[in-house]
Amino acid sequence: MNTRKIPDIIIGRLPVYLRALQRMADMGLKTTSSQELGERVGISAAQIRKDISQFGEFGKQGTGYSIEYLIDKLREILKVDRIWDVVVVGAGDVGRAIANYQGFRDRGFHVVAIFDSDKAKVGQSMGGFTVEDAGEMVERIKATGVRIAMLTVPVSAAQAVADQLILAGVKAILNYAPVNLNVPNHVKVQHIDPSTHLQRMTYYL
Amino acid sequence: MNTRKIPDIIIGRLPVYLRALQRMADMGLKTTSSQELGERVGISAAQIRKDISQFGEFGKQGTGYSIEYLIDKLREILKVDRIWDVVVVGAGDVGRAIANYQGFRDRGFHVVAIFDSDKAKVGQSMGGFTVEDAGEMVERIKATGVRIAMLTVPVSAAQAVADQLILAGVKAILNYAPVNLNVPNHVKVQHIDPSTHLQRMTYYL
Repeated sequence: MNTRKIPDIIIGRLPVYLRALQRMADMGLKTTSSQELGERVGISAAQIRKDISQFGEFGKQGTGYSIEYLIDKLREILKVDRIWDVVVVGAGDVGRAIANYQGFRDRGFHVVAIFDSDKAKVGQSMGGFTVEDAGEMVERIKATGVRIAMLTVPVSAAQAVADQLILAGVKAILNYAPVNLNVPNHVKVQHIDPSTHLQRMTYYL
Repeated sequence: MNTRKIPDIIIGRLPVYLRALQRMADMGLKTTSSQELGERVGISAAQIRKDISQFGEFGKQGTGYSIEYLIDKLREILKVDRIWDVVVVGAGDVGRAIANYQGFRDRGFHVVAIFDSDKAKVGQSMGGFTVEDAGEMVERIKATGVRIAMLTVPVSAAQAVADQLILAGVKAILNYAPVNLNVPNHVKVQHIDPSTHLQRMTYYL
């Protein structure tokens, strides 16, 4: 399986398929079709067949896809057939929501620590964690080999913290600060910025 | 200006350009180039020129773009040259983070109410709001004409609440519940699901 040349736009759709398939499995469904999956995720059946066929032949003519098999394959492709440790930087409202959220484990992620530079927050309890001193973040990440971080610090601090994370060995940053980050090519960044999503919809109103 | 046939993928990039341009304006910059903007947002200069040219001629040969003018035009195109009222449904951790967040106003949005169906939460104070009874949500939205909602309820409730919102006249839903929603064609949905973003990055690790 040569996946090196798959366009990122296709990779971006796979987690959406996986989420829908996991929901169907939770509902007790055993098989599905590209048509049915497409209706659930709002993507055409033809697009889904094309996306999935990039990785091999997963469906049987006439019987559709085995949901369990397709889940296994998508988890393998996306490398979430394992659990990834994740650190959170920023113990504000968003950091708290992440610390309290119970839904990561089923999707392949495990929050292991939450850091803040505010001495008043360090030592506080948050969602089962004790907030740790951001001054110790780089050493902690180096020592534990964590490769994924969620960044929930203010815009003014985001780039400096990202630089530190990368120095510590982080390769993937989920950035909640509404600002673009400059990172080396080997580091992946995804953004969560509700205003951006809202603006994408107001265009159509 | 005929914008009806602009692909949604282009519309999705405009808020990212706008965010970067607003940051450049905050830093006191007056003009930029597609090259410079591209480096800030991680998109090629050619793609930016192509995207922006869909809406007319905004740059001058040799002098680049006026940042202020481009901001004005993008805000006009995205219809955030006005302030949109938004309701929040779900007064949990994410609802609280949204209620406390001060960054919406500058981007075109104003949270006007937060609802929850949990009687223990109704009446509580949250980020300057008093949590309102979800049982009164449909009437409130109908009376005020709000067209945008953020949905921060559990997966099990998301579809039913979305159905109510649409019944009340909501046309755009920012869905924080990690589940796809079935909505009529005239309603827009965007998702915020950190696990989906994380899975998009683990593929590359």
